[in-house]
Amino acid sequence: MRTLALTLAYDGMPYAGWQRQREGTSIQQLVEEVLASIEGAPVTIHASGRTDAGVHALGQVVSCRLRHPISCHSLQRALNARLPPSIRVVAVEERAARFHARFSATAKSYAYRIWNARVEDPFEAQRAWHVPVALDVEAMRQALPAVVGTHDFAAFQGPRSVVRDTIRTMLEARLDDLSPRVDARAAVHATRGRLLVLHLRGTGFLRHMVRALAGTLVDIGHGRRPPADMARVLAARDRREAGRTAPPHGLFLVRVEYADETAPQLEVGDGGR
Amino acid sequence: MRTLALTLAYDGMPYAGWQRQREGTSIQQLVEEVLASIEGAPVTIHASGRTDAGVHALGQVVSCRLRHPISCHSLQRALNARLPPSIRVVAVEERAARFHARFSATAKSYAYRIWNARVEDPFEAQRAWHVPVALDVEAMRQALPAVVGTHDFAAFQGPRSVVRDTIRTMLEARLDDLSPRVDARAAVHATRGRLLVLHLRGTGFLRHMVRALAGTLVDIGHGRRPPADMARVLAARDRREAGRTAPPHGLFLVRVEYADETAPQLEVGDGGR
Repeated sequence: MRTLALTLAYDGMPYAGWQRQREGTSIQQLVEEVLASIEGAPVTIHASGRTDAGVHALGQVVSCRLRHPISCHSLQRALNARLPPSIRVVAVEERAARFHARFSATAKSYAYRIWNARVEDPFEAQRAWHVPVALDVEAMRQALPAVVGTHDFAAFQGPRSVVRDTIRTMLEARLDDLSPRVDARAAVHATRGRLLVLHLRGTGFLRHMVRALAGTLVDIGHGRRPPADMARVLAARDRREAGRTAPPHGLFLVRVEYADETAPQLEVGDGGR
Repeated sequence: MRTLALTLAYDGMPYAGWQRQREGTSIQQLVEEVLASIEGAPVTIHASGRTDAGVHALGQVVSCRLRHPISCHSLQRALNARLPPSIRVVAVEERAARFHARFSATAKSYAYRIWNARVEDPFEAQRAWHVPVALDVEAMRQALPAVVGTHDFAAFQGPRSVVRDTIRTMLEARLDDLSPRVDARAAVHATRGRLLVLHLRGTGFLRHMVRALAGTLVDIGHGRRPPADMARVLAARDRREAGRTAPPHGLFLVRVEYADETAPQLEVGDGGR
């Protein structure tokens, strides 16, 4: 039995999210179906984490176990030939038997994209949150250092979350301002506007955490809250204190890091789903 | 009767093209329907040129005549409120009575985007031509000066085109290489690759001309043709000599120029469609 790590990129818009659902097509389901057709038996894949409906990935990592001797390169080609263009396998690599995409992960990076322009851009409509009112980027940046470090992020978790331990470590928090156009040479922005990209890197994230942080940050950019509110909300540990949850289509899972891919932090039994 | 110029941006993928069709939804139809609902009477719009199914626009210009006294700003807002997010009105301006989006245009700019990477990128799949084999950008650039200037572009027009005068003037031709990632800060490219963007600016373009030029250029980048072939094909004036027509979804109408918006080159009668 081989253990493989697949790195996936996907446009989350057409899907009901990562995880298999009763209704709607999930990315997990599509990838498992192609793997099963190659293996000739059911294959279960474990992602570094679920992404909600509409959330995108540039570097989602999933692990799976396969008996089939297909080479990594051929497996990548076979998957890309059968999956829709909105899901691409960017890499396939052999891993030690105990490797698990979720439990072996040491850090994750997310980007939250905000299209800050009066008029929506047709080419950003499905991959950035359109905020028409000019945001105060400096105020937003002043709020960011408060979230770096080890904190109880209970104020920024999803409303129906059942996670008990809400302490996480944020390693980096940065807001990039790509003004006035990202890169005119790339010829993909129709309207004049600023693309603000919130980059977060941490050892772990709660459900909806990046989107709740982005929503609170936009409140600060609007002037509806002072920059100091970020630290206050964090200390309050109350979801009602934070801003709205920003919409899913601005969120990108950018990268998952593994310190030493041969030494996962936990034993893998039934998969930890 | 007022004459208005509307600048539109649209994602061409969901549509059957600019022009009203018997089957499928056209962009013209959707914009005309909203304008008619405001005017309370049918409104015909004239674009700077038709775009085929799948072709995008960052700055398509259309003209129309309206009796309704709505302000330009309110008209823009009303259109954007009722049109789907894939079509945006970027600007609305009053023009002299004789202004016509097609006949008054003095120059147009197009961009043809090529995603040159082994693996398709889910975020470029609908807005760039995926060419998996590494292209020789220098060879492609060597071929470009041949198309600048006034030439008979008969070799680069669509197969069913009925235009008699195939002489056009190309003002600029440039190939930008955005490597290895367009802008990592923009967080939108999942795979490692080069985005090649062919920028063309000319006084007029034949149907399929940019796509035929892009197809021939990619043949040169592949090494299937020498750079000198561009001049040879142009001189041959035979469509069979040129390369394939590149797919529509890589093409963007970027900008339409008007020297003096108050002085159109032709009288506008029934619209010149």
